[in-house]
Amino acid sequence: MKRKVGAVSIWGGRFTQGMDEAFERFNSSLSLDRRLILEDIEGSMAYAEALEKAGVLSPRELRRILEGLGEIRSRAQQDLNFLAEAKDEDVHSFVEAQLVETIGEAGLKLHTGRSRNDQVAVDTRLFLKKAIGQVQQGLKALMGELLNQARRHTDVVIPGYTHLRKAQPILLAHYLLAYFEMFSRDRERFEDCFRRTDCMPLGAGALAGNAFAVDREALRRKLDFARMTANSLDAVSDRDYLVDFVSAGSLTLVHLSRLAEDLIFFSTPECGWVELSDQVTTGSSLMPQKKNPDSLELLRGKSGRIIGNLTRLLVLLKGLPLTYNKDLQEDKEALFDTLDTLLDCLQVAQVVVGTLKIDAEAARRTLEGDFMAATDLADYLVRKGMPFREAHQLVGRIVLECEGRRIRLSELPLSRYRQFSPLFADDLVETLSVRHSLEARSVPGGTAPARVAEALSRAEQSLGLKNSSER
Amino acid sequence: MKRKVGAVSIWGGRFTQGMDEAFERFNSSLSLDRRLILEDIEGSMAYAEALEKAGVLSPRELRRILEGLGEIRSRAQQDLNFLAEAKDEDVHSFVEAQLVETIGEAGLKLHTGRSRNDQVAVDTRLFLKKAIGQVQQGLKALMGELLNQARRHTDVVIPGYTHLRKAQPILLAHYLLAYFEMFSRDRERFEDCFRRTDCMPLGAGALAGNAFAVDREALRRKLDFARMTANSLDAVSDRDYLVDFVSAGSLTLVHLSRLAEDLIFFSTPECGWVELSDQVTTGSSLMPQKKNPDSLELLRGKSGRIIGNLTRLLVLLKGLPLTYNKDLQEDKEALFDTLDTLLDCLQVAQVVVGTLKIDAEAARRTLEGDFMAATDLADYLVRKGMPFREAHQLVGRIVLECEGRRIRLSELPLSRYRQFSPLFADDLVETLSVRHSLEARSVPGGTAPARVAEALSRAEQSLGLKNSSER
Amino acid sequence: MKRKVGAVSIWGGRFTQGMDEAFERFNSSLSLDRRLILEDIEGSMAYAEALEKAGVLSPRELRRILEGLGEIRSRAQQDLNFLAEAKDEDVHSFVEAQLVETIGEAGLKLHTGRSRNDQVAVDTRLFLKKAIGQVQQGLKALMGELLNQARRHTDVVIPGYTHLRKAQPILLAHYLLAYFEMFSRDRERFEDCFRRTDCMPLGAGALAGNAFAVDREALRRKLDFARMTANSLDAVSDRDYLVDFVSAGSLTLVHLSRLAEDLIFFSTPECGWVELSDQVTTGSSLMPQKKNPDSLELLRGKSGRIIGNLTRLLVLLKGLPLTYNKDLQEDKEALFDTLDTLLDCLQVAQVVVGTLKIDAEAARRTLEGDFMAATDLADYLVRKGMPFREAHQLVGRIVLECEGRRIRLSELPLSRYRQFSPLFADDLVETLSVRHSLEARSVPGGTAPARVAEALSRAEQSLGLKNSSER
Amino acid sequence: MKRKVGAVSIWGGRFTQGMDEAFERFNSSLSLDRRLILEDIEGSMAYAEALEKAGVLSPRELRRILEGLGEIRSRAQQDLNFLAEAKDEDVHSFVEAQLVETIGEAGLKLHTGRSRNDQVAVDTRLFLKKAIGQVQQGLKALMGELLNQARRHTDVVIPGYTHLRKAQPILLAHYLLAYFEMFSRDRERFEDCFRRTDCMPLGAGALAGNAFAVDREALRRKLDFARMTANSLDAVSDRDYLVDFVSAGSLTLVHLSRLAEDLIFFSTPECGWVELSDQVTTGSSLMPQKKNPDSLELLRGKSGRIIGNLTRLLVLLKGLPLTYNKDLQEDKEALFDTLDTLLDCLQVAQVVVGTLKIDAEAARRTLEGDFMAATDLADYLVRKGMPFREAHQLVGRIVLECEGRRIRLSELPLSRYRQFSPLFADDLVETLSVRHSLEARSVPGGTAPARVAEALSRAEQSLGLKNSSER
Repeated sequence: MKRKVGAVSIWGGRFTQGMDEAFERFNSSLSLDRRLILEDIEGSMAYAEALEKAGVLSPRELRRILEGLGEIRSRAQQDLNFLAEAKDEDVHSFVEAQLVETIGEAGLKLHTGRSRNDQVAVDTRLFLKKAIGQVQQGLKALMGELLNQARRHTDVVIPGYTHLRKAQPILLAHYLLAYFEMFSRDRERFEDCFRRTDCMPLGAGALAGNAFAVDREALRRKLDFARMTANSLDAVSDRDYLVDFVSAGSLTLVHLSRLAEDLIFFSTPECGWVELSDQVTTGSSLMPQKKNPDSLELLRGKSGRIIGNLTRLLVLLKGLPLTYNKDLQEDKEALFDTLDTLLDCLQVAQVVVGTLKIDAEAARRTLEGDFMAATDLADYLVRKGMPFREAHQLVGRIVLECEGRRIRLSELPLSRYRQFSPLFADDLVETLSVRHSLEARSVPGGTAPARVAEALSRAEQSLGLKNSSER
Repeated sequence: MKRKVGAVSIWGGRFTQGMDEAFERFNSSLSLDRRLILEDIEGSMAYAEALEKAGVLSPRELRRILEGLGEIRSRAQQDLNFLAEAKDEDVHSFVEAQLVETIGEAGLKLHTGRSRNDQVAVDTRLFLKKAIGQVQQGLKALMGELLNQARRHTDVVIPGYTHLRKAQPILLAHYLLAYFEMFSRDRERFEDCFRRTDCMPLGAGALAGNAFAVDREALRRKLDFARMTANSLDAVSDRDYLVDFVSAGSLTLVHLSRLAEDLIFFSTPECGWVELSDQVTTGSSLMPQKKNPDSLELLRGKSGRIIGNLTRLLVLLKGLPLTYNKDLQEDKEALFDTLDTLLDCLQVAQVVVGTLKIDAEAARRTLEGDFMAATDLADYLVRKGMPFREAHQLVGRIVLECEGRRIRLSELPLSRYRQFSPLFADDLVETLSVRHSLEARSVPGGTAPARVAEALSRAEQSLGLKNSSER
Repeated sequence: MKRKVGAVSIWGGRFTQGMDEAFERFNSSLSLDRRLILEDIEGSMAYAEALEKAGVLSPRELRRILEGLGEIRSRAQQDLNFLAEAKDEDVHSFVEAQLVETIGEAGLKLHTGRSRNDQVAVDTRLFLKKAIGQVQQGLKALMGELLNQARRHTDVVIPGYTHLRKAQPILLAHYLLAYFEMFSRDRERFEDCFRRTDCMPLGAGALAGNAFAVDREALRRKLDFARMTANSLDAVSDRDYLVDFVSAGSLTLVHLSRLAEDLIFFSTPECGWVELSDQVTTGSSLMPQKKNPDSLELLRGKSGRIIGNLTRLLVLLKGLPLTYNKDLQEDKEALFDTLDTLLDCLQVAQVVVGTLKIDAEAARRTLEGDFMAATDLADYLVRKGMPFREAHQLVGRIVLECEGRRIRLSELPLSRYRQFSPLFADDLVETLSVRHSLEARSVPGGTAPARVAEALSRAEQSLGLKNSSER
Repeated sequence: MKRKVGAVSIWGGRFTQGMDEAFERFNSSLSLDRRLILEDIEGSMAYAEALEKAGVLSPRELRRILEGLGEIRSRAQQDLNFLAEAKDEDVHSFVEAQLVETIGEAGLKLHTGRSRNDQVAVDTRLFLKKAIGQVQQGLKALMGELLNQARRHTDVVIPGYTHLRKAQPILLAHYLLAYFEMFSRDRERFEDCFRRTDCMPLGAGALAGNAFAVDREALRRKLDFARMTANSLDAVSDRDYLVDFVSAGSLTLVHLSRLAEDLIFFSTPECGWVELSDQVTTGSSLMPQKKNPDSLELLRGKSGRIIGNLTRLLVLLKGLPLTYNKDLQEDKEALFDTLDTLLDCLQVAQVVVGTLKIDAEAARRTLEGDFMAATDLADYLVRKGMPFREAHQLVGRIVLECEGRRIRLSELPLSRYRQFSPLFADDLVETLSVRHSLEARSVPGGTAPARVAEALSRAEQSLGLKNSSER
């Protein structure tokens, strides 16, 4: 039995047997690509206009097609289950079949000179451009929340870590701005991805170009693309833009995983100066006392998902001959899943950051131990003329002694300091203060309060937020 | 507002604020883990019995719980949409809430001493054991189909390739048996995975063990596991069995991708001796002549999916502290997607292999050119006493001459052969025949017809098929 | 025993025991990062000048340090084995130790205010900027070779493929230009990566900023960076630029893997219209006739390497707390291996493309069969008024008949065509010609000879090659 | 110019041009596969004997070949630089060329009927079998060290964590045994891998089988393999065993990354009950006080390396046509790097674990806060008849009150407890003790001291260590 237009297939002429049922399910992409239906209709409307200008459609046929497509769009927008029962092979076949059913013969002309190969490319690029816009909004909202917290706590000092060991005191705002930088790069990366996506492939046909001289430049303008693809073979087999998107998303999730790791640690009772809101924590089914940072753990774990999607796409593309191959159908889920994960994660991260409670006093207490002023001590000696490497060694020995005696650097008597080196003098006390340590790091990008204030204002401006001076 | 049992949460006592709505959606796993509902109920029934034996439940309470769980199971089996509307956090909360709603207070006792941490572990292991069984069936069916084709075409000779260049003639059956070997290893790998999955974790509690002295050995027997987990901390944080499963699946898909690559190539008109059935090919929306091997391309492309799932799981687990962390919730989709993909791919591969049409005559024709007898020619000289490396060089020069003259090895006159070496004699003709080439490779595992016949019988026996002599 | 400057460690003051020997080997990165020695010296020279301006070094000390570093640089440039025997922990320790040995005490002052954390960041960014320059050269050379081949064969027509099935005739130049497009995008991607790499991190100190008020802006100018890093915490923990590089490299290798796959197929005797040069093929140790496309197979296989490096980096970074962690030391090999692989692959690909031999006549012959004009046939009917979808179905049936009768489309009599549809007329013959098929695809980006000529000229110009009209 | 045996190539007969120099470097694998030289010689010796039995070699030729190969082996064993200067294509060509140089013409006969395709397979399998043995030793040593620490600290109680939040007290020995379980599974996995590697491929020839009737069963015995490969096509293209190895290694590194993450956290001053030895920590070049857990961070980071190698191999194999393709040459580095990384990591992990210092008193102090007895409190109520879910809710509210009042559970007066529930009575005090909490978890696999003692003895026995009763 032959397949018929309007039922399942749009290509059955040269076939004598129907598809195996298992293969038919395997082959169908409608359950996934139906998410492209609005873009598919948008592309088809533009293409119909191009066909009319090229003389393939009469003005009347064009009008009917546009009306028909408009009607299908309305149905799709109104009823989420519109496509649920459909048995068509993919969203392109579905729309064509619906069109023929709705307007009759004129619908049979829409696919003239077009192939699903260039059609799916234009649909996906239209979709991705919108998707990137949503991700950029999500990033911006999260970055705004980081700045809000920074602004709210400009005086709070926290321990800065290297190797998960307390290293030097830093401003909380400085810490939050580090993530602002990471997400800024992510935004830039998504912009780069957008630029490469913003390229109109329609008119590439199956692979060799459109044979009905449609005006591709007009199509480009109509569909609001910045450029046209330059080579039809490349246009139907290129999926670089999807890799760009998932690759950028992988780094965003890596950044979120680092933020999550930090906040999970900072909010342990062992650290004790960050509390997560009840709104983003959950309990244990067994242990009544537990308040678990599930939101952060999921943020951390979701990185695997996007990195996995990246692997998926690269494996998919590896070794594919030109031009279109059906393997490419497998690209959709990687796109959709990455988009959904990104948007969810950015939103949850925003809530987590926005509801953080900082215990400034507890943070201050954590700065007292653990020899965080040791570098300042060495710098003190350097300023008095000792070569740095010597000073470093000497302070190392002082630390060792304090550790053995279980005292802090500030508790070691000056007299003992002077036995280590006569360069130590009364001004030592000031050196050991947190304030001094912060202010010493006054280079651009450093944690000195004045520098951080500048950085915060600059960040607010870059995000289009109110200038700090106006607040 | 507090969360209530039966509504959303089973752990809200120590919380004063409800969850953020975005986080609640993010956190919920019910849309995924509801697939574990039958296993969750099975585990809960066994656990209820253990609680009764431990004196925590009265016989009457046990009876009510078993009835209640049985009722929930019936509903789940009858109505796929049973869980569709539920707002519970996960399948475990859902079942507990339903139970309490169905049977009242006794339901509040079921979770005594148990945690979702050991519960999800037992659910997943129960599920995975069944899943592996299904995959093994799928592999077996595909392997059976390979053997059917081999049996159907015992005399067909095809070109064997290295580097996608014709190398030596081989039996088609020998070729098909190569894939039989690969899938046999896959079966072994899934068996290894099964063995490691077949280990009962219930009784590990949240992390430190069950505090109500339930009889774990009885639980093991009841739930039909081969062993018990030996350490409660490990039991709730181990996901090795999932990695094992997806890792085994990756290799299965790699094998399928190789089979697909081969068959796509063999069925090109350029090769011309394999035809794919209409049942597993599709057409082009634009080009009326096309008959595309979509089934094979999808099989090839799906490898990216499973390899991506493997990456996902390994990234997920990397660097997680002991014991349970919410990140682990992200393991489910990798499992379900890998299982579904494997089953679909194995089924479609079975149809593709089962419907292959082999044109034996066309295959024979492809053996004539391309100097496939060159190795036999060198071996001929070796048998007459020339060191192999010399013979190899000399035959290389003969090939070069024939190529230049655009003739086959069999078309070069004996007199010219004898100018290359006087060792060439009248028996040369026989050496150049395909039959001779095949029969020469008579070691176990070689392509000599007698060896392949033995291998085929052995394969049929190993799969429990009829012995070849009985056919 | 304590570690001493000049021997192994630069940080031993607070330690009482030496390193375990196995750990010492494990920890040492010198065998890898010695590749950064020139960048390390360049950064150190600039930093020494900054220290002098900041008053930490006297002019005389600066002079001695610059001389000492200059001397070490000379030794490194002259003798590759200079570092071979060194036991220092890393290249930074090595250079400092050498400096102290060469110039004495002044050398102990160089590290004032600096940390290996910002030092390795500046070294790596300096290195990567040069590396990207080399990759860009390699891409450009390969792209030039593609254009050379296109220019050399402007008239050659080859079969265009979808799904590895002949689809429509295309110009060889059009095919080659498709890869030109891919590599153009790769160049753009590496430019984006360069832009994000071109950011000066020195002055970030260990994490909190430099405490000696060095002039970071002057350092930026001296080291020729476009910008400064804006946040010291981010500056020492950011490895995004490496991910960007390896990610861009992954796509380049994916593109090369596709080119390789194509050329391996096109150069089979089964296709027969491409021959690979002896210069890039190898033989078999056993089969004298073989001429294997090893160069292309390695190009294809190397993709796994870079994709593996990308996975490595992303796994490495996932879940790392701020700021610097020693895990980051593992980034070097991914960088070096990706760079070396890229440069090798681009060079070999250039040789392969440059030495391709095209048999235009053989290519022409392959266009005759396989119904490649079927789309043109349908388009013919469309131009006479038949709706496309009907025409597609009808031509499908014509193809089926020809296939059954084992004849070509051009061999079916017009009378039979007219039984299928009275629209067929005498002008049908022209429609079935390759030339007509090419010229019909005359949209921008299509394979029509005029369009391809324009595209080729444009490509040559974009690469800075001679304009085609001047040739 | 032709390539000559003994110089570079063993296959040049049919070639008229030499290799491009860049390609020659690209193609050569000697710098890598020279690591297989002993296995290559071992395989060649066995093969020579087989050729003699098959009548291809005279007894005298065999003797000369064995002597020659023995001599080459001695040179390779004595002088690491033996192969450093060689220009041969690979280790197989190198050995053959050396042999011909050493013993003359008889050497030209060694490759009769053999191909580098089956040769590299047997070399690699021989190598991998030894490699797995080394990894097993490394695992065993690490596991022994875990048991030593457990035995040394049988009474030490530490906080058990879920979600990086204190959950319930556990024995340190119980914690260490959790990792013992993980590494036990790793050992099992490497055994599975060994079993699949232990299969003799020689005699597969280039792809179709050996044409000189060598006795493969005798080869198997001689080379000490458990089985023979069953299909020659599969034998030369199978690399599953490498994937198995790297896959098993990935999980081992994931386990090490988790151990590293734990120990980095436990050894922070914030936790304070674990101290890492000076032997496995390093300092900062800038901050004199730092003592960084570099060993653990590298262990954690190395996971990316092995997971990257796994990705590399799977990408490599995806979509490869049968049988041998040169892409497979890229498998070596993944193998060697994985092996070296595994051995290094296991050794360093052993030192880290072996030198851990546990501050039992500090650990005990950490158990006091954070409501770790909350579950026991709920269990207490359950034992007095309250349904668990109610008890959980009620204890949640008690925790909330204590948290608000900043007191511990043990500090809340009984009278207040009794306001929450009259079930609370004088025996409450005992319930809140750590000892009670531990002993309550007395199921097999639980943390009750008696159970842990049994588990420890069992683990020692399984590792072949002295039985605990004998100590």
